[in-house]
Amino acid sequence: MLSERIRKLTPYVPGEQPRDKAYIKLNTNENPYPPSPGIRELLKTFDYNILRLYPDPLALNLREKIGNLYQLPPDCVFAGNGSDEVLSFAFFAFFDNSRGELFFPEFTYSFYPVYCDFYSIRYKKIPLKPDFGIDLDAFLQADSLTSASCGIIFPNPNAPTGMYINLKDIQAFLNAYAKDRVVIIDEAYIDFGGESAASLVPEYNNLLIVKTFSKSRSLAGLRLGYALGQAPLIKALFTAKDSFNSYPLDTLAQKIGELAIEDSHYYSQINSQVAATREILSTSLSELGWKVFPSKANFVFAGKPGIPGEVVYRTLKEHGILVRYFNKQGIKDYVRITVGTEKEITLFLEKVKKLFSS
Amino acid sequence: MLSERIRKLTPYVPGEQPRDKAYIKLNTNENPYPPSPGIRELLKTFDYNILRLYPDPLALNLREKIGNLYQLPPDCVFAGNGSDEVLSFAFFAFFDNSRGELFFPEFTYSFYPVYCDFYSIRYKKIPLKPDFGIDLDAFLQADSLTSASCGIIFPNPNAPTGMYINLKDIQAFLNAYAKDRVVIIDEAYIDFGGESAASLVPEYNNLLIVKTFSKSRSLAGLRLGYALGQAPLIKALFTAKDSFNSYPLDTLAQKIGELAIEDSHYYSQINSQVAATREILSTSLSELGWKVFPSKANFVFAGKPGIPGEVVYRTLKEHGILVRYFNKQGIKDYVRITVGTEKEITLFLEKVKKLFSS
Repeated sequence: MLSERIRKLTPYVPGEQPRDKAYIKLNTNENPYPPSPGIRELLKTFDYNILRLYPDPLALNLREKIGNLYQLPPDCVFAGNGSDEVLSFAFFAFFDNSRGELFFPEFTYSFYPVYCDFYSIRYKKIPLKPDFGIDLDAFLQADSLTSASCGIIFPNPNAPTGMYINLKDIQAFLNAYAKDRVVIIDEAYIDFGGESAASLVPEYNNLLIVKTFSKSRSLAGLRLGYALGQAPLIKALFTAKDSFNSYPLDTLAQKIGELAIEDSHYYSQINSQVAATREILSTSLSELGWKVFPSKANFVFAGKPGIPGEVVYRTLKEHGILVRYFNKQGIKDYVRITVGTEKEITLFLEKVKKLFSS
Repeated sequence: MLSERIRKLTPYVPGEQPRDKAYIKLNTNENPYPPSPGIRELLKTFDYNILRLYPDPLALNLREKIGNLYQLPPDCVFAGNGSDEVLSFAFFAFFDNSRGELFFPEFTYSFYPVYCDFYSIRYKKIPLKPDFGIDLDAFLQADSLTSASCGIIFPNPNAPTGMYINLKDIQAFLNAYAKDRVVIIDEAYIDFGGESAASLVPEYNNLLIVKTFSKSRSLAGLRLGYALGQAPLIKALFTAKDSFNSYPLDTLAQKIGELAIEDSHYYSQINSQVAATREILSTSLSELGWKVFPSKANFVFAGKPGIPGEVVYRTLKEHGILVRYFNKQGIKDYVRITVGTEKEITLFLEKVKKLFSS
C-alpha cells in the first residue's frame, strides 16, 4: 500500500533521549543554560484565547525582529519549524538533478543525504582535508572536473567535527563558485565563537544562511529556525512552505521567538560561557592524551587513541553520561561531546580520567 | 537558481487575515469559543527551562491520550504540525503514479491538488452529485472504467459544502474499493455533528483518518493534527516525518494537546453550541430565500439566487464581515460562512437582511 518513494527511504536518526534513568546529557548539542527568563513572564500572562485563531502564516513580527539583528529587511528572512524544516524546504526549492549533483562534505550533518533521498536529489560527498577541515578547494575542483554541482551545502562550524571556516575563506569560495547555483551555509553552531556569513547576503544573490533557535537560543524544545537570503530565494521558500503546510509556526512559538531575539544580550552571555567551558574541555582532553579537533561549536569531537569511539560511548553511558557516537568508517575513533555546564564538564573529565587512563 | 520543482508550483492560499480593521471573522472556520480554560493554568505553571531540551520526537504521551479516545493503541496514532502537515506526509507515503491517479472530489479542500503538485502525483477530480454531495459510486466507477486510482482522499464533511456522508455509506464504499490502496478520510469537521469513521480502523488496513485540533478543539493557533490508522500506515508516516523534520511538534504544543484531549467534555459542549447556531444560520438563510447546503460542519455553504458569490463576499467585507468566496466555475454562486457565536450570527443575519433583500 506504500508509495515507491517511501519504500526506499532510510530516515534520519536523532540522538537518543533515553528515559530509563537520569543521564548527564552531552549527546544532542542542547544548550546547558535556560532560555531567557522573560519567557516565563510571557507564558504567565499569555492570552490563551488567541490560540483559537490561526497564527500569522507570514510570521511577520518575528521575521522583522530577526532581520533587524542582521540589518536585513523581512523579505530577506524566512522562518520555519526548526532549521530542519527550513533546510527541507531549501532542498526542495533549490536543488534538482537537471543541473547536476548536490555537493556536501563527506562527514557532516547526516540529515543532508536523507533530504536528498526524500526529494530524489543525487548528491556527491566531498572528502574532508587530512586535518578534518572542510575542503572548499575540493568542492571547486569536483565542480569543474566531473559533473557539475546543482548547488552546495555545508555547515559552519561543521558537525560533528566542530571545525570552522573563517569569513575570508567563505568569501573567496563564493567568488570562485558558479553564480547561478545556490550555496547554503548551515550556521546552526555559529554563535559559539564563529563569525556569521549573514553579512555577505546583500553581496551574493546565491547565498542562503540557515540558523536555528535550538542551540544558541536554548530553545530546542520550541522548534524555530530561519533562513537569510536575498528576496527571490526567500520567496521560493515561501512557495515551498505554502505547498506543504501554510502555518508551520504556532502563535506561542512566534511570540517566544520574538522575545528570544529581543533578549540577545542574555544569550551572548550564556554562549560565551559555553565557549569558555569548551576551551576547558578541549584543553583538558588534550592533556589526557586525547586527539581533539579544534571546535568553534557547542560540542567537541575527540577520541582517545587506541580506544574505539563505540567503547568510549558505551563505557560513559554505563556510568551515566551520554555522548554521541557515529558508526561510520573514517570517524569511528571519535565521539561528539556536547559542552554542558562547567560542573557537568568537570564531572565528565573526572569520569574520563578514571575510565580511560592508559 | 530555482529547482524545476518549485517553478511549476502554485501554492495554496489560506483565507485572508486582514489587519486593516476589526472584522467579524467568519472566513477561516475557526471555533468562536476559547480553548479549554485549563490551558491558562498550564501556561502559568509551565517550567520554561525544559524548552532548552528537544521535545519527544515520538509525542508518545499525546499519541496515547488520542488513542484512548478512539480505543486505539499509540502505534495506530500519528501526530504532526497541523493536519496539513499530516496530510502532506500521507500524500508522500501512500500515493504515487506507478499505480494510477489519486482521486478526490471536484470541489473539496483546495490543498489536495497542491500536495499532488508538490510530490508530482497525478490526480483526477470526480464530479459531485447534482445535490453537491460527494459521489462515492462515481469514485468506484471511475476506478473500474478508466485508469486505476492509486488511492482516494475526501473530507467528511466535505469542504466547502459542509455535506456529510454517513458511516454506513462509508463502510459500503470501503467494502467495494480496492483493498491494496489507501483511502484517506479527512475529518477536520467531523466533531460538529458527524460520526467519525475511526471505529472502522481496526477493520480496514487501508483506511487512514486525519483529524485536527484547529476546529473542534479551538486550537488553530497551536498547529496540531493527527492520523488514525493501522500500525503499518502509521509507521510509514513516521518514516516520512523522520526524513523531513524529526521534531515537528514542540514541547508546549504536545502538553497543551494532551490537556485538550483530557478536556474533551468542554469541547463537546462548545461544539454542540456551534452545531445549534449552525442550524439557526441555515434555517434563517433559507427563510431569506438563500440556497443553503445541508451542513454537518462548523460552516455553511450558501448563496442568494441572482447575486454572485463574489458580490456577497465584497459587500459583506465592506460592512465589516469576512466570509470566504472561491473563484471557481461551478461554485461561484456561493460563499462559505463560518459559524460564529450566536451574537455574531445574529449580526450577520441582520446585515444580510439589509444588504441583500430582493
